[in-house]
Amino acid sequence: MSDTTLLERQDRAGTATLTLTRPDAYNSLSLELMQALHAELDRIASDQDVRCVVIRGSGKGFCAGHDLKQMLGAGEEDFYRCTFDTCSRLMQRVVSLPVPVIAQVHGVATAAGCQLVASADLAVAADTARFATPGVNIGLFCSTPMVALSRAIQPKHAMEMLLTGRLVGAERAYEMGLVNRLVPESELESTVDELADTIASKSRKTLQIGKQAFYRQREMSLADAYDHCSEVMVGNMLTEDAQEGIDAFIHKRKPEWKHR
Amino acid sequence: MSDTTLLERQDRAGTATLTLTRPDAYNSLSLELMQALHAELDRIASDQDVRCVVIRGSGKGFCAGHDLKQMLGAGEEDFYRCTFDTCSRLMQRVVSLPVPVIAQVHGVATAAGCQLVASADLAVAADTARFATPGVNIGLFCSTPMVALSRAIQPKHAMEMLLTGRLVGAERAYEMGLVNRLVPESELESTVDELADTIASKSRKTLQIGKQAFYRQREMSLADAYDHCSEVMVGNMLTEDAQEGIDAFIHKRKPEWKHR
Amino acid sequence: MSDTTLLERQDRAGTATLTLTRPDAYNSLSLELMQALHAELDRIASDQDVRCVVIRGSGKGFCAGHDLKQMLGAGEEDFYRCTFDTCSRLMQRVVSLPVPVIAQVHGVATAAGCQLVASADLAVAADTARFATPGVNIGLFCSTPMVALSRAIQPKHAMEMLLTGRLVGAERAYEMGLVNRLVPESELESTVDELADTIASKSRKTLQIGKQAFYRQREMSLADAYDHCSEVMVGNMLTEDAQEGIDAFIHKRKPEWKHR
Repeated sequence: MSDTTLLERQDRAGTATLTLTRPDAYNSLSLELMQALHAELDRIASDQDVRCVVIRGSGKGFCAGHDLKQMLGAGEEDFYRCTFDTCSRLMQRVVSLPVPVIAQVHGVATAAGCQLVASADLAVAADTARFATPGVNIGLFCSTPMVALSRAIQPKHAMEMLLTGRLVGAERAYEMGLVNRLVPESELESTVDELADTIASKSRKTLQIGKQAFYRQREMSLADAYDHCSEVMVGNMLTEDAQEGIDAFIHKRKPEWKHR
Repeated sequence: MSDTTLLERQDRAGTATLTLTRPDAYNSLSLELMQALHAELDRIASDQDVRCVVIRGSGKGFCAGHDLKQMLGAGEEDFYRCTFDTCSRLMQRVVSLPVPVIAQVHGVATAAGCQLVASADLAVAADTARFATPGVNIGLFCSTPMVALSRAIQPKHAMEMLLTGRLVGAERAYEMGLVNRLVPESELESTVDELADTIASKSRKTLQIGKQAFYRQREMSLADAYDHCSEVMVGNMLTEDAQEGIDAFIHKRKPEWKHR
Repeated sequence: MSDTTLLERQDRAGTATLTLTRPDAYNSLSLELMQALHAELDRIASDQDVRCVVIRGSGKGFCAGHDLKQMLGAGEEDFYRCTFDTCSRLMQRVVSLPVPVIAQVHGVATAAGCQLVASADLAVAADTARFATPGVNIGLFCSTPMVALSRAIQPKHAMEMLLTGRLVGAERAYEMGLVNRLVPESELESTVDELADTIASKSRKTLQIGKQAFYRQREMSLADAYDHCSEVMVGNMLTEDAQEGIDAFIHKRKPEWKHR
């Protein structure tokens, strides 16, 4: 389904794992790779068998951001606009996807690569993971990565990364809340699998309702957020999966989801 | 004053302690308990002798959220709407209360119980405390709890709780900023008492001005927040308690609050 | 340039260091000191040789907030309004400054002094640093400091400081994300110098673009933030410094900024 020279997809037990496969270019996000990833996410959005997505990189690291050679070579305002717009839409596609996205990070995750981690719902880092928004070093501030970064971590932490451009180690990234788990690289895949399996055991309909409401209510006032989410819960309560889940809970049995 | 079969109130030195007393149901928030708690908070709002509120649970834990048996038994959209609306209004009453609220947490605080902790101004946890938003496990995403949770802790931390439904231990809750203090269960009450006494030693008028301004300015742009809070401070400065407090400070004596 | 009885400025290698010089009054922010600091920041804003600002205190501590004696002595609503408005505009000037601001903190940073730390883009604390918003102790809630504080750290952490008025040690401030680095006092200056030098090695134009976009996009919805920052990056990409920086990166040489 996907262009295997850029992106590989493997499905297992309700989880689709997307692997960026430009290892020689540190999986940098060329325009073509961003388009391939966006297209694959679109397919997943309507694939009822997928309840969790994992994004990871092949080779030495996760993702080194944009493809600078491609960008400088182009040298035209229209191409820059296309690149940043494509990237911004891709990151928002991660957020708007009906199922959760886990970033599985080893090695470097920089610039738009770091943005992808910040945009994911969850992130698991190997101890080899290192994060940076280094645009400032080359005169190009990481302004779009900061949209995601400044919503994921505290402002002084984000500002230190953005203003210094320096690499942040996995332990500090964990302290800052950029990643949920920190494990030895040898345990990275099994840790992500276990987390993905946990999520994929839930009702797809329920995950979709919750993820969508999370990002919507976040931008509302407290009163509006409560109004919105109260209605979301009423609608959720009326779904077959909630009726089944509560009945199973009360009768101490395993639920059978209709909308897995 | 309160229905002692659901809720007990004890007043001591300016602090009203509200104990949820449905220990056999893990203090789950039946419609009646939510109404009793809301009514008690309304009374406290106009009780000039109260300067701090503590909410705690009786028995094995803090609060296990909604009463699922009551909810499933009802099986009607109107009842669901009533339940979630009542809960959302209760949580907003905690926020709009003129005096600070401390959640004193031992054992489980799950779903709406976790939301109550997140909604409180401060929280103190025993080492036995465990937190979860487990709705996703029964097909009913904790969408209203997440309104409070996503405003209390960082997004990836909130998402992990919401998407996995798993219990989070007291130490991790402390790291995530969901609770202010973590103490052995044997020291829980004394720690909360000390914190409540500190707050209850302040001017009630000042606490009210500050708490109200905190939540209002939080939803404004930086410029609007400064405009609003500058005016709040001018008004605060003109109160008798500020004039008394500053004079006492300069003359190195203890202030005598008019509006304790 | 500045009134040396209140404020001293030293420039070194692209960094302007502003020292509050009212050590006998714990560098408290009298109206005159706030005006002097604001005026100096205005000068820096249009000084193309400055790429980083450090603010620090002389004597025993960083800054103890407003000058209470001056305030109580005045006793007039107009004077209070002038004080809080001047302070709020000063803090917003820190945020709107085109170059990054680092707070270098030793000893106490309380009330508006703590607000100055929270308003700075970055902060480095000596182990002697202590932070508080103690207004509640004198009947005058730290409502304007909380505008900055509640945007810098998590709400329960901010509330604990605001409601108890207590001092928070440097280590806890670091955990809360109020400061970026924690070092022995003997290493405070060298740590700040190193951080300032790192920032001052960047393009001034790039720092300006990024800092301005950071605070603007932060108040937008996710979609609007991406729209705004995508355009910011296109504009940034077209600057001479970005073209130079990317070319230098690709050719593995040091960039020569036009707009240092």
